[in-house]
Amino acid sequence: MSGWVVIAGLGPGDAALVTPEVRDALAEATDVVGYIPYVRRVTPRPGLTLHESDNRVEVERATHALEMAAEGKRVVVVSSGDPGVFAMASALFEALEAGPEVWLSLEIRVLPGITAMLAAAARLGAPLGHDFCAINLSDNLKPWSLIEHRLRLAAQAGFAMAFYNPRSASRPHQFGEALEILRAECGPDCLISFARNVSKDDETLTTVTLGDATPDMADMRTVVIVGNADTRRVGPHVYTPRRAE
Amino acid sequence: MSGWVVIAGLGPGDAALVTPEVRDALAEATDVVGYIPYVRRVTPRPGLTLHESDNRVEVERATHALEMAAEGKRVVVVSSGDPGVFAMASALFEALEAGPEVWLSLEIRVLPGITAMLAAAARLGAPLGHDFCAINLSDNLKPWSLIEHRLRLAAQAGFAMAFYNPRSASRPHQFGEALEILRAECGPDCLISFARNVSKDDETLTTVTLGDATPDMADMRTVVIVGNADTRRVGPHVYTPRRAE
Repeated sequence: MSGWVVIAGLGPGDAALVTPEVRDALAEATDVVGYIPYVRRVTPRPGLTLHESDNRVEVERATHALEMAAEGKRVVVVSSGDPGVFAMASALFEALEAGPEVWLSLEIRVLPGITAMLAAAARLGAPLGHDFCAINLSDNLKPWSLIEHRLRLAAQAGFAMAFYNPRSASRPHQFGEALEILRAECGPDCLISFARNVSKDDETLTTVTLGDATPDMADMRTVVIVGNADTRRVGPHVYTPRRAE
Repeated sequence: MSGWVVIAGLGPGDAALVTPEVRDALAEATDVVGYIPYVRRVTPRPGLTLHESDNRVEVERATHALEMAAEGKRVVVVSSGDPGVFAMASALFEALEAGPEVWLSLEIRVLPGITAMLAAAARLGAPLGHDFCAINLSDNLKPWSLIEHRLRLAAQAGFAMAFYNPRSASRPHQFGEALEILRAECGPDCLISFARNVSKDDETLTTVTLGDATPDMADMRTVVIVGNADTRRVGPHVYTPRRAE
């Protein structure tokens, strides 16, 4: 029996958003590794070992997964959302690149999932229905100046925008600075939506104008979506038209 | 029994990528509407009427769905991928905005799906593992000059990029122009991947440098993913590191 690593997206939280492909991979696994709250979404069963790890140890966790696969285990690395969007897939390949050459012949598959911005967009209506970008607002792995640069260019391009990790206790001021940049570039009437804990029991959705947005509307469990100049409300829905001039 | 409209994402093709939420909505529907090949992915059953329509009649199709829901029917509008990404959700809200005010009280829900770029990224590795943008390269609903503007700004921002509808028979030269802009802005060594018919039996994946990319590598069934300056290969995989300077 040869081992493998699957990096699987569990979606935003609701079990009805987990694909059959991911469910089947979990059914075949001998080991599951991941950040504590994501591993706890996997149902325990005999023959399956659950390995929980803390946040911010992504490469160590990925290395552990590769080591176990090299020993013949069938390992699923669980991510929230989609593993390829600000989640575990890149960390796994970083660990692969840094590891022994023999790991390159391991079977490694990434299984997509419903990423937070698309779950949030669906709940709101269709705010990402035209060209858009996705930006991780955390400066943990890149300088804040680069994030500011990207915000300005994205606004000048007329992209709708989705922000992951908009605000944390360790950097409370930066999201306020991001809002200032957006107000300057997009104007105060542009719509901004805050989707917190999407698909979970305590989901909240809030849409205001940039002029009315305040930093406390976001935390680390919030996905923020900023419309382009054409984004509008129709009834309770928020959407961006397909057409642009 | 009151009617409703659900706009549901069927994912890229493989039934293992359809969420249970979408499957359940199809089980409750009285009517399914959509572009012919997507409706044909729905299993017929007694009590379910399938309404197939041609491409490029999105607003007419959405209006038909809303009319049927107003008559009390339970209507699923099917999209490939995710309905909120260059698909039917925005068209539905455009039809809602243009329609009678009474439609605003209809129950309308968007159910997310696995969009083509994330299915393609998963098959390739993790090329969208850092900040990225999604651009529809069709100039059907926006001027080509705007697309060129967005390509330049996205490159200057250091976004990885995903392109939908990169090339069609009616506009064969534009994708070549897009490649010229990308080569000028990103340099010839940047990686570009062509993912055709992802998750289907005849899936093909090709990764080359921008210097070696030619327009004929893409057609309307291809999702194109362009890496940023840090995107690299490790073994058979393509990924973008999480870290940036």
